Amino acid sequence: MKNRIYIIGMGPGKEEMMTVEALEALEASDVIIGYTVYIKLLGERFAEKEMMTTPMKQETKRCRLCFEEAAKGKQVALICSGDAGIYGLASLMYELNREYPDIELTVIPGITAACSGAAVLGAPLNHDFCVISLSDLLTPWEKIKKRLIAAAEGDFVIAIYNPSSHKRKDYLMRACDILLQVIEEERACGYVENIGREGTKAVTCTLKELRETEVNMFTTVFIGNSNSSIVNGKLLTKRGYQIERNTDICRNN
Amino acid sequence: MKNRIYIIGMGPGKEEMMTVEALEALEASDVIIGYTVYIKLLGERFAEKEMMTTPMKQETKRCRLCFEEAAKGKQVALICSGDAGIYGLASLMYELNREYPDIELTVIPGITAACSGAAVLGAPLNHDFCVISLSDLLTPWEKIKKRLIAAAEGDFVIAIYNPSSHKRKDYLMRACDILLQVIEEERACGYVENIGREGTKAVTCTLKELRETEVNMFTTVFIGNSNSSIVNGKLLTKRGYQIERNTDICRNN
Repeated sequence: MKNRIYIIGMGPGKEEMMTVEALEALEASDVIIGYTVYIKLLGERFAEKEMMTTPMKQETKRCRLCFEEAAKGKQVALICSGDAGIYGLASLMYELNREYPDIELTVIPGITAACSGAAVLGAPLNHDFCVISLSDLLTPWEKIKKRLIAAAEGDFVIAIYNPSSHKRKDYLMRACDILLQVIEEERACGYVENIGREGTKAVTCTLKELRETEVNMFTTVFIGNSNSSIVNGKLLTKRGYQIERNTDICRNN
Repeated sequence: MKNRIYIIGMGPGKEEMMTVEALEALEASDVIIGYTVYIKLLGERFAEKEMMTTPMKQETKRCRLCFEEAAKGKQVALICSGDAGIYGLASLMYELNREYPDIELTVIPGITAACSGAAVLGAPLNHDFCVISLSDLLTPWEKIKKRLIAAAEGDFVIAIYNPSSHKRKDYLMRACDILLQVIEEERACGYVENIGREGTKAVTCTLKELRETEVNMFTTVFIGNSNSSIVNGKLLTKRGYQIERNTDICRNN
Protein backbone atom coordinates (compact mmCIF):
# COMPACT_ATOMS: atom_id res chain seq x y z
CA MET A 1 0.00 0.00 0.00
CA LYS A 2 1.27 3.44 -0.88
CA ASN A 3 1.90 6.06 1.75
CA ARG A 4 -0.75 8.75 1.67
CA ILE A 5 -0.76 12.46 2.47
CA TYR A 6 -4.00 14.21 3.46
CA ILE A 7 -4.25 17.76 2.15
CA ILE A 8 -6.80 19.28 4.47
CA GLY A 9 -8.90 22.42 4.18
CA MET A 10 -9.49 23.51 7.76
CA GLY A 11 -12.08 26.19 7.00
CA PRO A 12 -11.87 29.63 8.60
CA GLY A 13 -10.20 28.48 11.79
CA LYS A 14 -12.42 27.15 14.52
CA GLU A 15 -12.79 23.43 14.91
CA GLU A 16 -16.60 23.49 14.65
CA MET A 17 -16.28 24.70 11.07
CA MET A 18 -14.12 21.77 10.02
CA THR A 19 -15.73 18.73 8.44
CA VAL A 20 -15.89 15.39 10.20
CA GLU A 21 -13.55 13.82 7.62
CA ALA A 22 -11.00 16.62 8.09
CA LEU A 23 -10.94 16.01 11.84
CA GLU A 24 -10.72 12.24 11.33
CA ALA A 25 -7.79 12.68 8.95
CA LEU A 26 -5.98 14.84 11.50
CA GLU A 27 -6.65 12.23 14.20
CA ALA A 28 -5.26 9.51 11.92
CA SER A 29 -2.06 11.43 11.16
CA ASP A 30 1.33 11.14 12.83
CA VAL A 31 2.53 14.58 11.81
CA ILE A 32 0.66 17.78 10.96
CA ILE A 33 2.43 20.25 8.70
CA GLY A 34 1.35 23.79 7.92
CA TYR A 35 1.92 27.50 8.05
CA THR A 36 2.60 28.55 11.66
CA VAL A 37 -0.62 30.59 12.05
CA TYR A 38 -2.88 27.68 11.03
CA ILE A 39 -1.07 25.17 13.22
CA LYS A 40 -1.72 27.47 16.17
CA LEU A 41 -5.44 27.61 15.34
CA LEU A 42 -5.74 23.84 15.72
CA GLY A 43 -5.77 24.05 19.49
CA GLU A 44 -5.61 21.51 22.28
CA ARG A 45 -7.21 18.52 20.61
CA PHE A 46 -4.15 17.77 18.51
CA ALA A 47 -1.53 19.01 20.97
CA GLU A 48 -0.04 15.50 21.26
CA LYS A 49 0.72 15.27 17.55
CA GLU A 50 4.06 16.07 15.99
CA MET A 51 3.73 19.51 14.39
CA MET A 52 6.01 20.97 11.73
CA THR A 53 5.72 24.51 10.47
CA THR A 54 7.36 26.58 7.78
CA PRO A 55 7.02 30.36 7.50
CA MET A 56 5.00 32.18 4.83
CA LYS A 57 6.43 32.32 1.30
CA GLN A 58 8.02 28.89 1.66
CA GLU A 59 5.24 26.91 0.09
CA THR A 60 7.44 24.62 -1.98
CA LYS A 61 9.59 23.83 1.04
CA ARG A 62 6.48 23.06 3.09
CA CYS A 63 5.19 20.71 0.40
CA ARG A 64 8.52 18.91 0.04
CA LEU A 65 8.61 18.44 3.79
CA CYS A 66 5.30 16.58 3.54
CA PHE A 67 6.66 14.17 0.94
CA GLU A 68 9.88 13.63 2.89
CA GLU A 69 8.01 12.82 6.10
CA ALA A 70 5.59 10.53 4.26
CA ALA A 71 8.52 8.72 2.64
CA LYS A 72 9.70 7.84 6.17
CA GLY A 73 6.44 5.94 6.61
CA LYS A 74 4.59 8.59 8.63
CA GLN A 75 0.97 9.45 7.97
CA VAL A 76 1.15 13.15 7.06
CA ALA A 77 -1.55 15.85 7.16
CA LEU A 78 -0.91 19.15 5.39
CA ILE A 79 -3.30 21.84 6.58
CA CYS A 80 -4.42 24.91 4.63
CA SER A 81 -6.89 27.58 5.72
CA GLY A 82 -10.28 27.59 4.00
CA ASP A 83 -10.27 25.04 1.18
CA ALA A 84 -6.93 23.48 0.19
CA GLY A 85 -7.87 23.72 -3.49
CA ILE A 86 -8.54 27.49 -3.44
CA TYR A 87 -5.36 29.59 -3.01
CA GLY A 88 -4.08 26.58 -1.06
CA LEU A 89 -1.41 23.96 -1.68
CA ALA A 90 -3.32 21.12 -3.36
CA SER A 91 -2.18 21.99 -6.88
CA LEU A 92 1.48 22.40 -5.94
CA MET A 93 1.36 19.08 -4.07
CA TYR A 94 0.08 17.30 -7.18
CA GLU A 95 2.82 18.95 -9.25
CA LEU A 96 5.52 17.74 -6.85
CA ASN A 97 3.86 14.32 -6.63
CA ARG A 98 5.60 13.49 -9.93
CA GLU A 99 8.90 13.43 -8.05
CA TYR A 100 7.47 11.16 -5.34
CA PRO A 101 5.41 8.62 -7.29
CA ASP A 102 5.12 6.19 -4.36
CA ILE A 103 3.04 8.62 -2.35
CA GLU A 104 -0.69 9.12 -2.87
CA LEU A 105 -2.56 12.34 -2.20
CA THR A 106 -6.08 12.86 -0.87
CA VAL A 107 -7.61 16.34 -0.84
CA ILE A 108 -10.19 16.93 1.89
CA PRO A 109 -12.25 20.02 1.06
CA GLY A 110 -12.97 22.76 3.59
CA ILE A 111 -15.22 25.79 3.94
CA THR A 112 -13.76 28.61 1.85
CA ALA A 113 -14.14 32.27 2.87
CA ALA A 114 -16.66 32.95 0.07
CA CYS A 115 -19.04 30.56 1.88
CA SER A 116 -18.18 31.33 5.50
CA GLY A 117 -18.13 35.09 4.91
CA ALA A 118 -21.41 35.00 2.98
CA ALA A 119 -23.08 33.17 5.88
CA VAL A 120 -22.13 35.99 8.24
CA LEU A 121 -23.24 38.79 5.88
CA GLY A 122 -26.58 37.18 4.93
CA ALA A 123 -26.79 35.60 1.49
CA PRO A 124 -24.75 37.70 -0.94
CA LEU A 125 -23.74 34.91 -3.34
CA ASN A 126 -26.96 32.95 -3.86
CA HIS A 127 -26.39 32.52 -7.59
CA ASP A 128 -23.47 32.83 -10.07
CA PHE A 129 -20.35 34.39 -8.56
CA CYS A 130 -16.59 34.89 -8.98
CA VAL A 131 -13.73 34.64 -6.53
CA ILE A 132 -10.80 37.00 -7.19
CA SER A 133 -7.63 37.55 -5.15
CA LEU A 134 -6.10 41.02 -5.13
CA SER A 135 -2.64 39.69 -4.30
CA ASP A 136 -0.27 40.53 -7.13
CA LEU A 137 2.60 38.51 -5.66
CA LEU A 138 2.09 35.80 -8.24
CA THR A 139 -0.41 37.36 -10.63
CA PRO A 140 0.30 40.52 -12.64
CA TRP A 141 -1.97 43.43 -11.67
CA GLU A 142 -3.05 43.73 -15.31
CA LYS A 143 -4.57 40.24 -15.11
CA ILE A 144 -6.36 41.06 -11.85
CA LYS A 145 -7.73 44.21 -13.46
CA LYS A 146 -8.95 42.26 -16.50
CA ARG A 147 -10.74 39.77 -14.26
CA LEU A 148 -12.41 42.50 -12.18
CA ILE A 149 -13.76 44.09 -15.34
CA ALA A 150 -14.90 40.74 -16.78
CA ALA A 151 -16.65 39.89 -13.50
CA ALA A 152 -18.42 43.26 -13.38
CA GLU A 153 -19.45 43.04 -17.03
CA GLY A 154 -20.81 39.53 -16.47
CA ASP A 155 -22.91 40.86 -13.56
CA PHE A 156 -21.36 38.31 -11.19
CA VAL A 157 -21.36 38.71 -7.44
CA ILE A 158 -17.65 38.98 -6.58
CA ALA A 159 -15.92 37.62 -3.47
CA ILE A 160 -12.55 39.35 -3.08
CA TYR A 161 -9.79 37.48 -1.21
CA ASN A 162 -6.56 39.10 0.02
CA PRO A 163 -7.92 42.64 -0.33
CA SER A 164 -5.06 44.16 1.62
CA SER A 165 -1.68 43.59 3.22
CA HIS A 166 0.97 45.70 4.92
CA LYS A 167 2.42 46.77 1.59
CA ARG A 168 -0.83 46.77 -0.41
CA LYS A 169 -3.01 49.10 1.64
CA ASP A 170 -4.57 50.83 -1.38
CA TYR A 171 -5.38 47.71 -3.45
CA LEU A 172 -9.02 47.55 -2.46
CA MET A 173 -9.42 51.20 -3.42
CA ARG A 174 -7.75 50.50 -6.77
CA ALA A 175 -10.04 47.50 -7.32
CA CYS A 176 -13.11 49.61 -6.48
CA ASP A 177 -12.00 52.25 -8.96
CA ILE A 178 -11.79 49.58 -11.67
CA LEU A 179 -15.22 48.20 -10.76
CA LEU A 180 -16.70 51.72 -10.76
CA GLN A 181 -15.89 51.93 -14.46
CA VAL A 182 -18.64 49.34 -14.98
CA ILE A 183 -20.97 49.37 -11.97
CA GLU A 184 -22.75 52.14 -10.09
CA GLU A 185 -21.59 53.81 -6.86
CA GLU A 186 -24.67 52.67 -4.94
CA ARG A 187 -24.08 48.94 -5.62
CA ALA A 188 -24.67 46.90 -2.42
CA CYS A 189 -21.43 45.51 -0.94
CA GLY A 190 -20.11 44.15 2.33
CA TYR A 191 -17.09 42.75 4.07
CA VAL A 192 -16.29 40.40 6.94
CA GLU A 193 -13.22 40.51 9.18
CA ASN A 194 -11.93 37.50 11.13
CA ILE A 195 -14.49 34.99 9.88
CA GLY A 196 -14.89 32.09 12.30
CA ARG A 197 -12.35 33.57 14.70
CA GLU A 198 -12.33 35.92 17.67
CA GLY A 199 -13.73 39.34 16.74
CA THR A 200 -15.80 38.53 13.66
CA LYS A 201 -17.11 41.80 12.23
CA ALA A 202 -19.52 42.17 9.31
CA VAL A 203 -20.24 45.47 7.57
CA THR A 204 -22.59 46.29 4.70
CA CYS A 205 -22.04 49.37 2.57
CA THR A 206 -22.19 50.79 -0.94
CA LEU A 207 -19.38 50.37 -3.47
CA LYS A 208 -18.59 54.07 -3.02
CA GLU A 209 -18.27 53.62 0.73
CA LEU A 210 -16.20 50.48 0.27
CA ARG A 211 -13.77 52.49 -1.85
CA GLU A 212 -13.11 54.73 1.17
CA THR A 213 -12.64 51.82 3.59
CA GLU A 214 -9.33 50.42 4.71
CA VAL A 215 -9.70 46.72 5.48
CA ASN A 216 -7.12 44.41 7.05
CA MET A 217 -5.62 41.25 5.58
CA PHE A 218 -8.06 38.99 7.44
CA THR A 219 -11.00 40.38 5.49
CA THR A 220 -13.15 38.98 2.69
CA VAL A 221 -15.02 41.54 0.59
CA PHE A 222 -18.27 40.98 -1.31
CA ILE A 223 -19.41 43.08 -4.28
CA GLY A 224 -23.11 42.53 -5.02
CA ASN A 225 -24.58 42.12 -8.50
CA SER A 226 -27.50 44.04 -10.02
CA ASN A 227 -29.95 41.93 -7.95
CA SER A 228 -28.23 42.58 -4.62
CA SER A 229 -29.53 44.81 -1.86
CA ILE A 230 -29.17 45.41 1.86
CA VAL A 231 -32.24 44.20 3.75
CA ASN A 232 -32.39 44.64 7.54
CA GLY A 233 -28.61 44.92 7.65
CA LYS A 234 -28.05 41.76 5.62
CA LEU A 235 -26.47 41.69 2.14
CA LEU A 236 -28.78 39.62 -0.08
CA THR A 237 -28.76 38.68 -3.74
CA LYS A 238 -32.13 37.68 -5.12
CA ARG A 239 -32.97 35.06 -7.69
CA GLY A 240 -35.90 34.77 -10.06
CA TYR A 241 -38.45 33.35 -7.69
CA GLN A 242 -37.70 36.07 -5.16
CA ILE A 243 -37.84 38.90 -7.63
CA GLU A 244 -41.19 37.62 -8.86
CA ARG A 245 -42.94 38.58 -5.64
CA ASN A 246 -42.08 35.44 -3.70
CA THR A 247 -44.80 33.42 -5.36
CA ASP A 248 -44.05 29.89 -6.43
CA ILE A 249 -44.03 30.20 -10.14
CA CYS A 250 -44.98 27.48 -12.53
CA ARG A 251 -41.97 26.03 -14.26
CA ASN A 252 -41.66 23.50 -16.99
CA ASN A 253 -38.49 21.47 -16.81
CA MET B 1 -35.14 35.20 23.37
CA LYS B 2 -36.16 34.97 19.74
CA ASN B 3 -36.85 31.66 18.06
CA ARG B 4 -34.07 30.74 15.67
CA ILE B 5 -33.94 28.77 12.42
CA TYR B 6 -30.69 27.12 11.33
CA ILE B 7 -30.18 27.19 7.56
CA ILE B 8 -27.70 24.39 7.04
CA GLY B 9 -25.44 23.55 4.12
CA MET B 10 -25.04 19.76 4.30
CA GLY B 11 -22.28 19.50 1.70
CA PRO B 12 -22.45 16.88 -1.05
CA GLY B 13 -24.39 14.31 0.96
CA LYS B 14 -22.41 12.06 3.23
CA GLU B 15 -22.24 12.89 6.90
CA GLU B 16 -18.42 12.93 7.02
CA MET B 17 -18.45 15.93 4.69
CA MET B 18 -20.66 17.98 6.98
CA THR B 19 -19.10 20.38 9.45
CA VAL B 20 -19.24 19.81 13.17
CA GLU B 21 -21.47 22.87 13.66
CA ALA B 22 -23.90 21.63 11.00
CA LEU B 23 -24.24 18.29 12.78
CA GLU B 24 -24.61 20.01 16.15
CA ALA B 25 -27.35 22.28 14.79
CA LEU B 26 -29.23 19.23 13.45
CA GLU B 27 -28.87 17.51 16.81
CA ALA B 28 -30.21 20.61 18.56
CA SER B 29 -33.27 20.86 16.30
CA ASP B 30 -36.79 19.53 16.87
CA VAL B 31 -37.75 19.42 13.21
CA ILE B 32 -35.66 19.10 10.05
CA ILE B 33 -37.15 20.54 6.86
CA GLY B 34 -35.83 20.05 3.34
CA TYR B 35 -36.25 18.76 -0.16
CA THR B 36 -37.13 15.05 -0.04
CA VAL B 37 -33.85 13.85 -1.61
CA TYR B 38 -31.67 15.64 0.95
CA ILE B 39 -33.74 14.50 3.91
CA LYS B 40 -33.17 10.91 2.73
CA LEU B 41 -29.41 11.49 2.58
CA LEU B 42 -29.32 12.33 6.26
CA GLY B 43 -29.53 8.71 7.30
CA GLU B 44 -29.99 6.90 10.58
CA ARG B 45 -28.42 9.37 12.96
CA PHE B 46 -31.38 11.74 12.79
CA ALA B 47 -34.10 9.15 12.23
CA GLU B 48 -35.76 10.07 15.55
CA LYS B 49 -36.28 13.68 14.53
CA GLU B 50 -39.46 15.05 13.04
CA MET B 51 -38.86 15.45 9.31
CA MET B 52 -40.89 17.59 6.91
CA THR B 53 -40.34 17.63 3.18
CA THR B 54 -41.71 19.58 0.26
CA PRO B 55 -41.17 18.60 -3.38
CA MET B 56 -38.91 20.44 -5.81
CA LYS B 57 -40.10 23.79 -7.18
CA GLN B 58 -41.87 24.64 -3.93
CA GLU B 59 -39.07 26.62 -2.38
CA THR B 60 -41.22 29.43 -1.03
CA LYS B 61 -43.62 26.95 0.53
CA ARG B 62 -40.69 25.10 2.13
CA CYS B 63 -39.32 28.34 3.58
CA ARG B 64 -42.70 29.43 4.94
CA LEU B 65 -43.07 26.04 6.58
CA CYS B 66 -39.84 26.73 8.48
CA PHE B 67 -41.14 30.02 9.84
CA GLU B 68 -44.52 28.51 10.76
CA GLU B 69 -42.89 25.66 12.67
CA ALA B 70 -40.46 28.02 14.39
CA ALA B 71 -43.37 30.27 15.39
CA LYS B 72 -44.82 27.30 17.28
CA GLY B 73 -41.70 27.34 19.44
CA LYS B 74 -39.87 24.50 17.73
CA GLN B 75 -36.16 24.64 16.93
CA VAL B 76 -36.11 24.31 13.13
CA ALA B 77 -33.29 23.22 10.80
CA LEU B 78 -33.66 23.85 7.07
CA ILE B 79 -31.21 21.73 5.06
CA CYS B 80 -29.82 22.53 1.62
CA SER B 81 -27.31 20.50 -0.39
CA GLY B 82 -23.82 21.96 -0.71
CA ASP B 83 -23.76 25.45 0.78
CA ALA B 84 -27.10 27.06 1.72
CA GLY B 85 -25.90 30.39 0.37
CA ILE B 86 -25.07 29.10 -3.14
CA TYR B 87 -28.16 28.17 -5.19
CA GLY B 88 -29.69 27.37 -1.80
CA LEU B 89 -32.45 28.94 0.28
CA ALA B 90 -30.57 31.35 2.56
CA SER B 91 -31.43 34.44 0.52
CA LEU B 92 -35.12 33.60 0.18
CA MET B 93 -35.27 32.91 3.93
CA TYR B 94 -33.89 36.37 4.70
CA GLU B 95 -36.41 37.91 2.30
CA LEU B 96 -39.32 36.17 4.03
CA ASN B 97 -37.84 37.00 7.44
CA ARG B 98 -39.38 40.46 7.05
CA GLU B 99 -42.80 38.87 7.50
CA TYR B 100 -41.69 36.96 10.60
CA PRO B 101 -39.63 39.54 12.50
CA ASP B 102 -39.65 37.55 15.75
CA ILE B 103 -37.58 34.74 14.26
CA GLU B 104 -33.81 34.90 13.86
CA LEU B 105 -31.83 33.13 11.17
CA THR B 106 -28.39 31.55 11.34
CA VAL B 107 -26.70 30.32 8.16
CA ILE B 108 -24.27 27.43 8.66
CA PRO B 109 -22.00 27.11 5.62
CA GLY B 110 -21.34 23.79 3.90
CA ILE B 111 -18.97 22.36 1.30
CA THR B 112 -20.16 23.49 -2.13
CA ALA B 113 -19.67 21.32 -5.24
CA ALA B 114 -16.94 23.61 -6.61
CA CYS B 115 -14.81 22.57 -3.61
CA SER B 116 -15.87 18.94 -3.23
CA GLY B 117 -15.70 18.28 -6.97
CA ALA B 118 -12.31 19.96 -7.29
CA ALA B 119 -10.93 17.75 -4.50
CA VAL B 120 -11.89 14.64 -6.49
CA LEU B 121 -10.50 15.92 -9.81
CA GLY B 122 -7.18 17.16 -8.37
CA ALA B 123 -6.81 20.92 -7.97
CA PRO B 124 -8.59 22.63 -10.88
CA LEU B 125 -9.56 25.86 -9.07
CA ASN B 126 -6.42 26.85 -7.19
CA HIS B 127 -6.74 30.53 -8.02
CA ASP B 128 -9.48 32.91 -9.30
CA PHE B 129 -12.62 31.13 -10.50
CA CYS B 130 -16.31 31.53 -11.36
CA VAL B 131 -19.34 29.43 -10.53
CA ILE B 132 -22.10 29.45 -13.17
CA SER B 133 -25.38 27.50 -13.23
CA LEU B 134 -26.75 26.44 -16.63
CA SER B 135 -30.30 26.24 -15.32
CA ASP B 136 -32.45 28.76 -17.17
CA LEU B 137 -35.49 28.15 -14.99
CA LEU B 138 -34.94 31.45 -13.21
CA THR B 139 -32.20 33.09 -15.29
CA PRO B 140 -32.64 33.99 -18.96
CA TRP B 141 -30.29 32.01 -21.25
CA GLU B 142 -28.96 35.31 -22.63
CA LYS B 143 -27.64 36.18 -19.17
CA ILE B 144 -26.04 32.74 -18.77
CA LYS B 145 -24.40 33.18 -22.18
CA LYS B 146 -23.09 36.62 -21.24
CA ARG B 147 -21.58 35.21 -18.06
CA LEU B 148 -19.91 32.29 -19.83
CA ILE B 149 -18.28 34.70 -22.27
CA ALA B 150 -17.20 37.09 -19.51
CA ALA B 151 -15.71 34.19 -17.52
CA ALA B 152 -13.80 32.89 -20.55
CA GLU B 153 -12.55 36.36 -21.45
CA GLY B 154 -11.39 36.90 -17.87
CA ASP B 155 -9.43 33.62 -18.03
CA PHE B 156 -11.25 32.29 -14.98
CA VAL B 157 -11.48 28.62 -14.15
CA ILE B 158 -15.23 27.89 -14.37
CA ALA B 159 -17.22 25.49 -12.21
CA ILE B 160 -20.53 24.72 -13.94
CA TYR B 161 -23.49 23.70 -11.75
CA ASN B 162 -26.72 22.17 -13.11
CA PRO B 163 -25.17 21.26 -16.48
CA SER B 164 -28.08 19.06 -17.48
CA SER B 165 -31.59 17.90 -16.63
CA HIS B 166 -34.26 15.74 -18.26
CA LYS B 167 -35.43 18.61 -20.43
CA ARG B 168 -32.05 20.33 -20.88
CA LYS B 169 -29.90 17.54 -22.26
CA ASP B 170 -28.06 19.77 -24.75
CA TYR B 171 -27.29 22.69 -22.42
CA LEU B 172 -23.71 21.64 -21.72
CA MET B 173 -23.08 21.34 -25.46
CA ARG B 174 -24.54 24.80 -25.98
CA ALA B 175 -22.37 26.18 -23.17
CA CYS B 176 -19.25 24.56 -24.69
CA ASP B 177 -20.07 26.11 -28.07
CA ILE B 178 -20.23 29.53 -26.41
CA LEU B 179 -16.93 28.95 -24.58
CA LEU B 180 -15.30 27.74 -27.81
CA GLN B 181 -15.83 31.21 -29.27
CA VAL B 182 -13.19 32.41 -26.80
CA ILE B 183 -11.05 29.45 -25.71
CA GLU B 184 -9.31 26.68 -27.59
CA GLU B 185 -10.60 23.13 -28.21
CA GLU B 186 -7.70 21.58 -26.30
CA ARG B 187 -8.41 23.43 -23.04
CA ALA B 188 -8.14 21.05 -20.06
CA CYS B 189 -11.52 20.26 -18.48
CA GLY B 190 -13.12 17.67 -16.23
CA TYR B 191 -16.32 16.64 -14.53
CA VAL B 192 -17.43 14.72 -11.46
CA GLU B 193 -20.62 12.74 -11.05
CA ASN B 194 -22.19 11.93 -7.65
CA ILE B 195 -19.67 13.80 -5.52
CA GLY B 196 -19.56 12.44 -1.98
CA ARG B 197 -22.18 9.80 -2.78
CA GLU B 198 -22.31 6.23 -4.03
CA GLY B 199 -20.70 5.92 -7.48
CA THR B 200 -18.44 8.99 -7.55
CA LYS B 201 -16.89 9.23 -11.02
CA ALA B 202 -14.27 11.76 -12.14
CA VAL B 203 -13.28 12.29 -15.77
CA THR B 204 -10.70 14.62 -17.31
CA CYS B 205 -10.97 15.67 -20.96
CA THR B 206 -10.53 18.53 -23.41
CA LEU B 207 -13.18 21.16 -24.02
CA LYS B 208 -13.84 19.59 -27.42
CA GLU B 209 -14.42 16.19 -25.81
CA LEU B 210 -16.61 17.76 -23.14
CA ARG B 211 -18.79 19.23 -25.87
CA GLU B 212 -19.53 15.68 -27.07
CA THR B 213 -20.30 14.37 -23.57
CA GLU B 214 -23.75 13.93 -22.08
CA VAL B 215 -23.61 14.37 -18.33
CA ASN B 216 -26.39 13.77 -15.82
CA MET B 217 -27.93 16.26 -13.42
CA PHE B 218 -25.72 15.12 -10.51
CA THR B 219 -22.59 16.36 -12.26
CA THR B 220 -20.33 19.36 -11.68
CA VAL B 221 -18.21 20.42 -14.65
CA PHE B 222 -14.86 22.25 -14.52
CA ILE B 223 -13.42 24.32 -17.38
CA GLY B 224 -9.72 25.00 -16.86
CA ASN B 225 -8.06 28.35 -17.48
CA SER B 226 -4.96 29.02 -19.59
CA ASN B 227 -2.73 27.64 -16.77
CA SER B 228 -4.64 24.36 -16.43
CA SER B 229 -3.42 20.96 -17.57
CA ILE B 230 -4.02 17.28 -16.96
CA VAL B 231 -1.14 15.73 -15.00
CA ASN B 232 -1.22 12.00 -14.18
CA GLY B 233 -4.97 11.98 -14.67
CA LYS B 234 -5.55 14.97 -12.38
CA LEU B 235 -6.87 18.35 -13.53
CA LEU B 236 -4.54 21.01 -12.15
CA THR B 237 -4.35 24.78 -12.43
CA LYS B 238 -0.95 26.25 -11.69
CA ARG B 239 -0.08 29.47 -9.97
CA GLY B 240 2.94 31.70 -10.24
CA TYR B 241 5.29 29.80 -7.99
CA GLN B 242 4.53 26.57 -9.82
CA ILE B 243 4.95 28.01 -13.27
CA GLU B 244 8.28 29.45 -12.23
CA ARG B 245 9.85 26.00 -12.00
CA ASN B 246 8.74 25.24 -8.45
CA THR B 247 11.45 27.35 -6.92
CA ASP B 248 10.61 29.53 -3.97
CA ILE B 249 10.89 32.97 -5.42
CA CYS B 250 11.87 36.08 -3.56
CA ARG B 251 8.92 38.34 -3.04
CA ASN B 252 8.63 41.79 -1.60
CA ASN B 253 5.34 42.37 0.16
